[in-house]
Amino acid sequence: MVQVKKIGIVGATGYTGVELLRLLVKHPDIEISYVTSRSNVGVRVDEMFPNLRGYIDIAFSDPSTDALAECDLVFFATPNGIAMNHVPELLQANTKVIDLAADFRIKDVSVWSKWYGMIHACPELLGEAVYGLPEINRDLLKTANLVANPGCYPTSVILGLLPLLESKLVDLDNIIADTKSGVSGAGKQANIGTLFSEMGESFKAYGVGGHRHQPEISQILSQLSESSVDLTFVPHLLPIIRGIHATIYSRTDVDASTLQALYEKQYINEPFVDVLPQGSHPETRNVKSSNMCQIAIHKPAESSRLVVLSVIDNLVKGAAGQAVQNMNIMFGLHETTALDRPALLP
Amino acid sequence: MVQVKKIGIVGATGYTGVELLRLLVKHPDIEISYVTSRSNVGVRVDEMFPNLRGYIDIAFSDPSTDALAECDLVFFATPNGIAMNHVPELLQANTKVIDLAADFRIKDVSVWSKWYGMIHACPELLGEAVYGLPEINRDLLKTANLVANPGCYPTSVILGLLPLLESKLVDLDNIIADTKSGVSGAGKQANIGTLFSEMGESFKAYGVGGHRHQPEISQILSQLSESSVDLTFVPHLLPIIRGIHATIYSRTDVDASTLQALYEKQYINEPFVDVLPQGSHPETRNVKSSNMCQIAIHKPAESSRLVVLSVIDNLVKGAAGQAVQNMNIMFGLHETTALDRPALLP
Amino acid sequence: MVQVKKIGIVGATGYTGVELLRLLVKHPDIEISYVTSRSNVGVRVDEMFPNLRGYIDIAFSDPSTDALAECDLVFFATPNGIAMNHVPELLQANTKVIDLAADFRIKDVSVWSKWYGMIHACPELLGEAVYGLPEINRDLLKTANLVANPGCYPTSVILGLLPLLESKLVDLDNIIADTKSGVSGAGKQANIGTLFSEMGESFKAYGVGGHRHQPEISQILSQLSESSVDLTFVPHLLPIIRGIHATIYSRTDVDASTLQALYEKQYINEPFVDVLPQGSHPETRNVKSSNMCQIAIHKPAESSRLVVLSVIDNLVKGAAGQAVQNMNIMFGLHETTALDRPALLP
Amino acid sequence: MVQVKKIGIVGATGYTGVELLRLLVKHPDIEISYVTSRSNVGVRVDEMFPNLRGYIDIAFSDPSTDALAECDLVFFATPNGIAMNHVPELLQANTKVIDLAADFRIKDVSVWSKWYGMIHACPELLGEAVYGLPEINRDLLKTANLVANPGCYPTSVILGLLPLLESKLVDLDNIIADTKSGVSGAGKQANIGTLFSEMGESFKAYGVGGHRHQPEISQILSQLSESSVDLTFVPHLLPIIRGIHATIYSRTDVDASTLQALYEKQYINEPFVDVLPQGSHPETRNVKSSNMCQIAIHKPAESSRLVVLSVIDNLVKGAAGQAVQNMNIMFGLHETTALDRPALLP
Repeated sequence: MVQVKKIGIVGATGYTGVELLRLLVKHPDIEISYVTSRSNVGVRVDEMFPNLRGYIDIAFSDPSTDALAECDLVFFATPNGIAMNHVPELLQANTKVIDLAADFRIKDVSVWSKWYGMIHACPELLGEAVYGLPEINRDLLKTANLVANPGCYPTSVILGLLPLLESKLVDLDNIIADTKSGVSGAGKQANIGTLFSEMGESFKAYGVGGHRHQPEISQILSQLSESSVDLTFVPHLLPIIRGIHATIYSRTDVDASTLQALYEKQYINEPFVDVLPQGSHPETRNVKSSNMCQIAIHKPAESSRLVVLSVIDNLVKGAAGQAVQNMNIMFGLHETTALDRPALLP
Repeated sequence: MVQVKKIGIVGATGYTGVELLRLLVKHPDIEISYVTSRSNVGVRVDEMFPNLRGYIDIAFSDPSTDALAECDLVFFATPNGIAMNHVPELLQANTKVIDLAADFRIKDVSVWSKWYGMIHACPELLGEAVYGLPEINRDLLKTANLVANPGCYPTSVILGLLPLLESKLVDLDNIIADTKSGVSGAGKQANIGTLFSEMGESFKAYGVGGHRHQPEISQILSQLSESSVDLTFVPHLLPIIRGIHATIYSRTDVDASTLQALYEKQYINEPFVDVLPQGSHPETRNVKSSNMCQIAIHKPAESSRLVVLSVIDNLVKGAAGQAVQNMNIMFGLHETTALDRPALLP
Repeated sequence: MVQVKKIGIVGATGYTGVELLRLLVKHPDIEISYVTSRSNVGVRVDEMFPNLRGYIDIAFSDPSTDALAECDLVFFATPNGIAMNHVPELLQANTKVIDLAADFRIKDVSVWSKWYGMIHACPELLGEAVYGLPEINRDLLKTANLVANPGCYPTSVILGLLPLLESKLVDLDNIIADTKSGVSGAGKQANIGTLFSEMGESFKAYGVGGHRHQPEISQILSQLSESSVDLTFVPHLLPIIRGIHATIYSRTDVDASTLQALYEKQYINEPFVDVLPQGSHPETRNVKSSNMCQIAIHKPAESSRLVVLSVIDNLVKGAAGQAVQNMNIMFGLHETTALDRPALLP
Repeated sequence: MVQVKKIGIVGATGYTGVELLRLLVKHPDIEISYVTSRSNVGVRVDEMFPNLRGYIDIAFSDPSTDALAECDLVFFATPNGIAMNHVPELLQANTKVIDLAADFRIKDVSVWSKWYGMIHACPELLGEAVYGLPEINRDLLKTANLVANPGCYPTSVILGLLPLLESKLVDLDNIIADTKSGVSGAGKQANIGTLFSEMGESFKAYGVGGHRHQPEISQILSQLSESSVDLTFVPHLLPIIRGIHATIYSRTDVDASTLQALYEKQYINEPFVDVLPQGSHPETRNVKSSNMCQIAIHKPAESSRLVVLSVIDNLVKGAAGQAVQNMNIMFGLHETTALDRPALLP
């Protein structure tokens, strides 16, 4: 029998935090032993999140490295720049870490500093950190102690392009990712810009001049294709709570049915990537609350244009669900434990 | 070990149908053997509902009483007036039935005919049918063969008043239920009135002159209080997909903390009724996707006025989840099987 | 010809502020000469509100009493407790004032202080201030220098009850106002509680234990009925941006058609109150962007129960539109100027 | 003084119909004399559209060519394939026609028949019909008798590309229009696919394999650039009622400030095209209810990639507003009459 693992969550009052809790309270092989929030010490977790009443019986603690070090694994569901200050000590204490923020996603520390505006606290660990996308790094994850959980947009875009990159069948100088995200991706900060009355009944692009997820995506695309990539990345904000839809454009001479077969072969054994029949239009609600990524491939007639549609729930496969998937792999558990539920539709 | 039960679902293309499927595909003690839809015969279930890809591998069939009779239990997720034509034959074949529509909810057949505009096909079974609210009829459900699954509004209102009715502590001549429902309660019919562009960014009351759920609620309130009840019932349509919020008004001389204790005692062992701390304001999202009913009691200052707030997910505790709860009871299974998951928040 | 009036708006960066601007930029008889925002001095108004590009060519100023005193009329679209510090000086300078906040709504200064938690800066002006509901105070408004613009909920509830109060045809000991408001009513403050991801796909009551609009409504109901009133007021938050729906319950022995005639007679000459045909269900979208209040009266069968439905746009008839209506009356302009447009539907 | 023109609207029960009514009821130079709906003959217009109570006092009529021929101008707000059966007779009777559907948008009748699946009833009029985009055809519109009002997507995309096409500064072999529309664009038909519970909290692409607006856009782009164009057009459905956002990608060697100047020069005198400052992100709500198109140009760093953002209200500049603008031009009225109002924000 598997021994129950002790889990800590730092910064559990945000949306990825509560989503981790929602998934983990029913995980049979772990125990949530430590949940921190600097500004809510002593508040019961289920007082802040009434959906968890009856499922969790602890209060938020102040984050202490000593207490965290008693956990087998700690999730950092914190803003960027927090995890890196705790990770060295935790790794020394043999506590595994999954950072849901961006501290360990970019291998080139100068690129990281440019985009995140900080000096990195432990650049020596960037090499060791495994980029936690099981579809490309499953073997590395099995022995990883430090995992950089991918960004939500990168997850949707990379999974949408992966089969093409490895096979070198696509024009790498001409990739556009037009992505749309639900508002929960902006986090649970008091912010006028994401008020209901600002986001409702409207739609806009943002960060067209440059967005932090672009170097993250480019790094992985280049690594997979062993080549430089010209990627245009334009994110938009959708008036929905959960969901990302990536519409990815490139060119290829390969015909549609060959592409379809390529994608189906790539993902045939993946529990959380689902290639839809040719000509499908995945809806974000197909995967709401679930860890699934649904993908459809299109080649509009009489053209070399390729259009890939990819949908995820930004809080699940784009954050907490993928983190739990990574944890399962790191602990040698069944990869789908606590994640194997159909999406909520409608 | 429990023997796996064969389950049929008639009319599974609507919202209560797909919700039954979502809950049942992970139920360890049953097998979905037969799913019908007259207008979609041969269509794969997961083609219509892509959230179920990987979870169900059958197609819709034409409803046939013979095939249904091979099931241990059949859910009718059909419009009103369908189940009553199949039930007598199914009961004779020892197939249990849970009707999610209204055919067996009202004991007085003339009242039923008045509100539903039909002649009842088997009025002789109305006495035998058990009203499937476990919180009042758990013992009867254990041996029931025919269950009338309650309406969504009635579930929220009755659970909100139950402790008061049995204790006769409330003014029965002055009950108002101001209820608000998500649009999925109107079903998945092609209908201009429930288009996105009609329902979005708006709110309205409907049926103020009379609504079918009023006699259903009144019947149960009268039965529980052993008295006549003057109930004003006003439903409204919310621009959300799932959720019911009932705001219930009456008068009582009992003070707030006595009421709180009364509610807590009533529901202490109920797995799916959660009495919030005094002064709470339950949000419908607290129970989205879950079978929970959350209740809060208020007594605004210096007044005999009582205000009870009650929230459910209309498709779960208000329909499919309650039906699964009833099925579990009828089969002697653990009552919470397949239902014991936290709500999706946010 | 009417001389163009100079208008100032203090605190114009909130939702009532931008709504005042939207209405006033096309008002032929006024000129917006001064728009203030302490935290946005120098920012162009149309940079903050791109819907106004081409309609206004000024920037936000620091509020200065001297500059305000050069206006013919100043709107305070500020938080509670701001206007009262400027009003005495402005009145002395012969500048008229309309306060869209609550500083002058409550006549009893001790009640005001209890609910608003402040010492009033000029209680001596409370008697002079006119409650700016034209349907009850039109004559007083013609000569008013200081107007307390009503709250949004009070406007919807008072207009819904007005014909009954004056005619003493309703049970004043048993009035319930179950009200529902769009999120813009909570203002444009950075606040976790009104984020899109908190308010979307959900619904809740709030302030059941007591809300500041209750004493405001009670004061007017008592004044109109010349009697004390037992009012239960329960507000709820709707996942829409604009709109209030009040569902008002009482008892009366008068029949439905008499009530209908009473309402129609009361409002026959009112430009912004529209009594719908008997049995109607007004939707909030019927009045979105417009200054109209739509009302419908119901008497459910075999009961003395009366149900009044009343809808307004909380930012228009519930705030900025009513303020413009009041301004028009105070200046002797045509009352509907700049307000006479159909609502936006859908 | 201008003589009041008699206006007819055929098919006024849909969303473009009610939007025409909303705009026209306050137009000082016209009179709505005839509003038709085959299925609602005798129903008062303001009974179907309660936002128009007090603004229009007629009922829907059966469409009769004789009655229509008495109008000075008739709008067809009908499904595709209706207008073409009435137009020849109306033109003969000297009645001008603006078709808001697609009957006269495509010059090549075989292309039209392929995409619309019908034989054209009057192909001889295709040459005479003027494509009603004032920004390219203002002079032709002044004398036009038959106007093809552009599609909503084409309006947003063509205005976004117009300055580049005429100046031949853009790579015509590599244009992508990733477009997103509010649900009202799908019309007011009883349709499961556009129910609130289907569209809410979700997002999807559709018609990736081919959409009717693609040949319409391509025709105009080719005409303006005097060259063939390789356009990839992917529409998506947004969970909002009104609004289109086009994100348009191409390549150009021209730098950002030159492009900005080019766009500003092109549109400097256009009343309904507004070029935002460089680096802006227009939101669809900036133009909700208004006839404005807002455009922003981006050149992400170190790349020849060009990104143009273009937003309109699909029911106004994308349909009814543009039709009124065209009517104003055809009648020699001031072009902005009845259209000169700021958008509704929030």
